Amino acid sequence: MNGAKCLVQTLVNTGVDVCFTNPGTSEMHFVTSLDGVEGIRPVLGLFEGVVTGAADGYGRMAGKPAATLLHLGPGLANGLANLHNAKRARSPIVNIVGDHATFHKQYDAPLQSDVEGTAGPVSDWVRTVTDSASIAADAADAVTAACGPPGGVSTLILPADLSWSETSAVPVERLLPRSPRAVASDTIDRLAKILSSGESTLLLIKGEALLAEGLAAASRVAEVSGAQLYCDTFVSRIQRGVGRAKIWRLPYFGEAVVKKMAGVRHLILIGAQPPVSFFAYPGKPSWLVPDDCEVHVLAEPDENATQALQDLAGALNAAPEAASTYDAHRPELLTGSLTPASIAATVGAFLPENAVVSDESGTSGGYLLKMTAGAPTHDWMFLTGGSIGQGLPLATGAAIACPDRKVVCLSGDGGAMYTIQSLWTQAREKLDVTTVIFSNRRYSILQTEFQRVGITDPGLKAQSVTRIDKPTLNFQELARGMGVNADRATTADEFNRLFEVGMKTRGPYLIEAVL
Amino acid sequence: MNGAKCLVQTLVNTGVDVCFTNPGTSEMHFVTSLDGVEGIRPVLGLFEGVVTGAADGYGRMAGKPAATLLHLGPGLANGLANLHNAKRARSPIVNIVGDHATFHKQYDAPLQSDVEGTAGPVSDWVRTVTDSASIAADAADAVTAACGPPGGVSTLILPADLSWSETSAVPVERLLPRSPRAVASDTIDRLAKILSSGESTLLLIKGEALLAEGLAAASRVAEVSGAQLYCDTFVSRIQRGVGRAKIWRLPYFGEAVVKKMAGVRHLILIGAQPPVSFFAYPGKPSWLVPDDCEVHVLAEPDENATQALQDLAGALNAAPEAASTYDAHRPELLTGSLTPASIAATVGAFLPENAVVSDESGTSGGYLLKMTAGAPTHDWMFLTGGSIGQGLPLATGAAIACPDRKVVCLSGDGGAMYTIQSLWTQAREKLDVTTVIFSNRRYSILQTEFQRVGITDPGLKAQSVTRIDKPTLNFQELARGMGVNADRATTADEFNRLFEVGMKTRGPYLIEAVL
Repeated sequence: MNGAKCLVQTLVNTGVDVCFTNPGTSEMHFVTSLDGVEGIRPVLGLFEGVVTGAADGYGRMAGKPAATLLHLGPGLANGLANLHNAKRARSPIVNIVGDHATFHKQYDAPLQSDVEGTAGPVSDWVRTVTDSASIAADAADAVTAACGPPGGVSTLILPADLSWSETSAVPVERLLPRSPRAVASDTIDRLAKILSSGESTLLLIKGEALLAEGLAAASRVAEVSGAQLYCDTFVSRIQRGVGRAKIWRLPYFGEAVVKKMAGVRHLILIGAQPPVSFFAYPGKPSWLVPDDCEVHVLAEPDENATQALQDLAGALNAAPEAASTYDAHRPELLTGSLTPASIAATVGAFLPENAVVSDESGTSGGYLLKMTAGAPTHDWMFLTGGSIGQGLPLATGAAIACPDRKVVCLSGDGGAMYTIQSLWTQAREKLDVTTVIFSNRRYSILQTEFQRVGITDPGLKAQSVTRIDKPTLNFQELARGMGVNADRATTADEFNRLFEVGMKTRGPYLIEAVL
Repeated sequence: MNGAKCLVQTLVNTGVDVCFTNPGTSEMHFVTSLDGVEGIRPVLGLFEGVVTGAADGYGRMAGKPAATLLHLGPGLANGLANLHNAKRARSPIVNIVGDHATFHKQYDAPLQSDVEGTAGPVSDWVRTVTDSASIAADAADAVTAACGPPGGVSTLILPADLSWSETSAVPVERLLPRSPRAVASDTIDRLAKILSSGESTLLLIKGEALLAEGLAAASRVAEVSGAQLYCDTFVSRIQRGVGRAKIWRLPYFGEAVVKKMAGVRHLILIGAQPPVSFFAYPGKPSWLVPDDCEVHVLAEPDENATQALQDLAGALNAAPEAASTYDAHRPELLTGSLTPASIAATVGAFLPENAVVSDESGTSGGYLLKMTAGAPTHDWMFLTGGSIGQGLPLATGAAIACPDRKVVCLSGDGGAMYTIQSLWTQAREKLDVTTVIFSNRRYSILQTEFQRVGITDPGLKAQSVTRIDKPTLNFQELARGMGVNADRATTADEFNRLFEVGMKTRGPYLIEAVL
């Protein structure tokens, strides 16, 4: 058995059954092992930003890592931005990055680069295989690190000769399951006291506790204590819709967060960091917690936040039925002009049961959460690391993880163009993804940010780099060019009709919503 | 004056007059200074791989750096692969990468990342501005480092607060010109003796000496001494066509290089490294120089290779007319099937005087150099670092640098999809670029490499990741979706007609050549 096959067999044995890839010569033995080992599916992307973003979407929805297979430093480099987002999402991912043969590196061939250095900033765990005898253990360690808890980005660098050489290593059979650390009971007791004090308290959640079970417990705690219940602005995945617990999302702009936090005496963090401004601004605060607010931690990211919330609910005698949940509600469709508000109403009206939403709607998405709260149960994924170009790949990977669920991708036009190649993978794999492009022909956020950074009168050149209207992009043609059926809506009525069709028809489909 | 304006004024003063960019909030003050300072043109890319690849193409053709303006670590990350190519090309580039305000970094906001760590592997020079008083000196140092000689990739990281704060710094007025080091006369004498010895000698050139003047001198040396004259496989730019000196290009595959080098007793390097295999292969050599071949250096990359070649020609009494140059020759057009050979003939038949060619034709490009050797004078740029997705951005930047010259981009379909967003910038800036896509619907090199790495019978999954035929890409629709006029050729006759139109019509245009 060569090193590549031993590595792939170890991945399969430890639960990795999908490999998102754009490989090269140095990965050919790994690629061949995808046939030689049963139980792993290659998914090709035309660009590595698609590959890593899809692995993120898969990891969020499957709750376990996919592998990526990337070609040397530059192939990894192309996937870095979405690995940054994945790292911020604490998504489990196992990157396998091919490298030159160990004996070849001394020659500084054109593709030679510092792969470990490139991987470091976006990885929670990095290792280079240095001995084919350790290849199974290296792979198992990579999967273990990715699984966490909490999840993380593992990068295992595989020199070509250790891939093609025979190895004495035996594939690892299985991993020992690892559980999150339990939160200490005195932490529960201490926070129960604070929550019973009547002082203004805000619960802020990020991570696993935003799935239905944790959220229900959090809602019980909030309801009986009178605390406010928020999730972070940049969460990986949240389960919402009819019967799921109500929660607010922390706003994007710091001023709005400051307003929300005004008067809060206790901030309780559940897998979250204290809120800070997304960017720094002249004369505006970065730290958004009021000076007289105490910050407490119920659960760190590697702790069992769901259990801790349930324990806390128990300590507060909050009955299961105390949770405040969303009632069924479908918004009325709007007619006339196509606007972010009308689109949100349409999404809320037609979102099917069990849908998965990949949301990179940016400035066009302000109405979406409100309008979909009363839709049937669904999962919602946000942009986590602020690097645009996540939405389409994330939807692609989620659709691989959840073949029986409708995936809805809501993307700004600017972000969509970063990783537009995702559509081809959707067509190739016949994925059930409906993509909505909010086509406002600008980087709208930058037009807002001019004001916020204190530039009241940007010049023509400055304005020009915030506009993508000359020429306009035609997303119908772009989608069709990659084998995805597409339509364009310019009125609310058109969008209502097309989105309904999208929800009722299987397969990849794109709607350009011209705003 | 704020830091951003001081920085931009320094860039302009030191000769930087183009800024390729996709900016974000932390770069808004820099963007505003593009209006506040006269003499710098912003060029927007929809993706940073376009931005950095265009800066590379600009640098190669203008012989001086453009700036890029990139948004934090992830924006830089998206541009890394083409910076890798640029670094290998020794192209002058000045990256300005925005970062969070110095006081904001402690809060680990979502876009926080290790920008220096991300920049390191692809940069020849990296610095973070730490004091607004030094901002002009920092910018001047970045330009100096980029200009070389030899050229290089500079990355200057600019925290937002040092950009927006008032600075006491005064923009640097000009740089002291720096000349390449002169090659010592005893080196010339020593190599002249070897070249006169009658022993088999091969001259291998990379870098500036591949422009007309250096090449003419090299040819004189080769002709009078009987030495073979080669350029490296991965050269930044070479000047060729009628009246320019003849030179061979070192082949891609190691076996072919070994064959060429057989019997060579002296290898003389002119800005080049000794030839090594692009990848390592089981049982094949990485080092391609024969054991009994002595390796000599005429000029290091930072030395004046053109002068050294002229001196060497003088020492050998090689008259200017000794150079062997290409005669005018236009190949006959082929008819019938569209093939790489027919396309090469068409390009050779119609390539206009003074054209600039960006060549990422990969496995489809084997006939191009032969068929274009007798075309009017032109510049030819190759893929330098092996990271695909360079061709279209490079053409884009070259067209900005050379507005009066026809730019021809020859790209494989696989590589084109990496940075297909380039077409939009070409449309926006009305650039005179004709792009030819060799549409063979596969990563053809990988199908070849299976055999070369010893895999004789790849399985279905392995084969599937080398094919991009399901679905087929429609480059006409992709181009039109970004505002670029496009046609498709399926026969040699169609391609002949369309390419001729492309050469005679100004503006961006794409031909999908279906092979």
